[in-house]
Amino acid sequence: FSTASGETVRATLFPGDGIGPEIAESVKQVFNVAGVPIEWEEHYVGTEVDPRTESFLTWESLESVRRNKVGLKGPMATPIGKGHRSLNLTLRKELGLYANVRPCNSLPGYKTRYDDVNLVTIRENTEGEYSGLEHQVVRGVVESLKIITRQASLRVAEYAFHYAKTNGRERVSAIHKANIMRKTDGLFLKCCREVAEKYPEIQYEEVIIDNCCMTLVKNPGLFDVLVMPNLYGDIISDLCAGLIGGLGLTPSCNIGEGGICLAEAVHGSAPDIAGKNLANPTALLLSAVMMLRHLQFNNQADRIHNAILETISEGKFRTSDLGGNASTSDFTKAVCDHI
Amino acid sequence: FSTASGETVRATLFPGDGIGPEIAESVKQVFNVAGVPIEWEEHYVGTEVDPRTESFLTWESLESVRRNKVGLKGPMATPIGKGHRSLNLTLRKELGLYANVRPCNSLPGYKTRYDDVNLVTIRENTEGEYSGLEHQVVRGVVESLKIITRQASLRVAEYAFHYAKTNGRERVSAIHKANIMRKTDGLFLKCCREVAEKYPEIQYEEVIIDNCCMTLVKNPGLFDVLVMPNLYGDIISDLCAGLIGGLGLTPSCNIGEGGICLAEAVHGSAPDIAGKNLANPTALLLSAVMMLRHLQFNNQADRIHNAILETISEGKFRTSDLGGNASTSDFTKAVCDHI
Ligand SMILES: CC(C)[C@H](C(=O)O)[C@@H](O)C(=O)O
Ligand SMILES: CC(C)[C@H](C(=O)O)[C@@H](O)C(=O)O
Repeated sequence: FSTASGETVRATLFPGDGIGPEIAESVKQVFNVAGVPIEWEEHYVGTEVDPRTESFLTWESLESVRRNKVGLKGPMATPIGKGHRSLNLTLRKELGLYANVRPCNSLPGYKTRYDDVNLVTIRENTEGEYSGLEHQVVRGVVESLKIITRQASLRVAEYAFHYAKTNGRERVSAIHKANIMRKTDGLFLKCCREVAEKYPEIQYEEVIIDNCCMTLVKNPGLFDVLVMPNLYGDIISDLCAGLIGGLGLTPSCNIGEGGICLAEAVHGSAPDIAGKNLANPTALLLSAVMMLRHLQFNNQADRIHNAILETISEGKFRTSDLGGNASTSDFTKAVCDHI
Repeated sequence: FSTASGETVRATLFPGDGIGPEIAESVKQVFNVAGVPIEWEEHYVGTEVDPRTESFLTWESLESVRRNKVGLKGPMATPIGKGHRSLNLTLRKELGLYANVRPCNSLPGYKTRYDDVNLVTIRENTEGEYSGLEHQVVRGVVESLKIITRQASLRVAEYAFHYAKTNGRERVSAIHKANIMRKTDGLFLKCCREVAEKYPEIQYEEVIIDNCCMTLVKNPGLFDVLVMPNLYGDIISDLCAGLIGGLGLTPSCNIGEGGICLAEAVHGSAPDIAGKNLANPTALLLSAVMMLRHLQFNNQADRIHNAILETISEGKFRTSDLGGNASTSDFTKAVCDHI
């Protein structure tokens, strides 16, 4: 991409399933009002077959992200036990989305039991417990394989330290269970240590996952940047989202091969409220802000970010997940008014 | 054992490493004052070689638990990357300790961010990610095996439902990641469902682990009894301990083959404060209370339990981990005085 001086940047948009289209609409409106010079390439990727393409996921959709290198994705349902593989996983695999990044900050104005959360989880997003390799050994005995590679571990560790350095963070904590999984998590730690050596200005520590979770609920302020294998990242990033109010408030983006940045709302597709103008667009909006920062549209990013925070702080327009009765469009309008 | 009508019951005591001996001493004193008719068979099991037996763990120590069927264990260090296997794991394996049970209740008088925690985690304790089966496939690629069996899953599920029923609990939640590990966690869920059918009076639900952790930090009051594979149990039980103040306050017991009950303080051995009369004996005391309930010494269990709660509530004698400056013996004396 070229960081706009007048020109328009093309970005891919996957609205996704359920409430996806409504919250994507909200992002489009907010971007319009903020004058973000982005032209969306919208593609349907989701668990329903798109009648136009007769597909869940087309080659063109993937190509669009590969070409634009930047995109935004809404929720896609992962049916338990259905035939095809989760679309979320397929995207991670096809686009080589090796790091999932989730900044987690207490929102001024939205009160939870915690007011001191200011951390970032960086999750390895391609291997580990998500290998998909499982089989029945004999009747009643099944096994699944966790795969850890030097390559993927170095890559995510490198990303974490680079992130820490370029975002004014002081410490990286590698989360593991190497006292039990000595070889797999041991290799992950070894790679983190190697990378840590190259960043003497960033502190480095190793924390066992059970202890990490206990400390997070007692004193999340002790953490800064956390880097970890896939499943631990899945668990801890959701735990952290819970500390600040839930997935409806937590932005995320995925970093992929060749410099791809695919921002993503990680909450579910909420089929029960889909199409009812009730969904909270905050997570997708904040994810879109991450995308803007990646594009170095910092001015627009700041304005939109502040408008979201102010709207939430004011508390006049809260969607039902936050105990209010504002609609998606009420909330969106309020954000637009604050810009 | 025979539930005492005058006779004495023999129980095994493994004081363990670090602060273990001090907090075990505290239990002995409290039991004496409460007139608990238990005769301890004390054995050293720990990470230092016992000069008397020249061993970390003797056959006699294991036999003692097998014979008595009831015991209490202090902390044993698990050195990261040292040659021999963790003693905690060895005990689980040798004694067939298939379920780790941790009641987690907000302590009246010890304030945390949560005051509504009242749940029990039941962890499969023998297989899963703890198989110890790992190897390097090629340089830079390692794998570890997670093993789930029908037998172990049924056994822990059966224990969980039985526990729920006999302890006046209403619901069992099976925690899993079967949307990703369809076969292994899928088998675990299948077994839970089979057992659930036999307990129509107990509600049953399935919760994905990431969502579970998020809900636990937002609203732990929604949970009752949780049952899960080994690693999830490790993570979630520590998270829950964090909600009520940490491992220093959380009791646990392990249920083993042939009706063994080995109560256990699950915190670390705290070598930095060992021998200094600074350790908090609460977790071991509360674990000992679980042992007493297992022996149906309910009267003594109640008296000791109340004395511990009162001492903590009063707040006059708090050990340093709880922000006080009482010594182990101050705290112990206070508990004894309340009995
Ligand atoms: C939906 C599911 C496959 C996914 C995961 O486990 O990675 C989700 O929990 C996430 O964190 O994006
Ligand atoms: C010390 C370690 C091996 C152990 C485990 O992982 O099971 C501990 O965390 C526990 O929960 O008892």
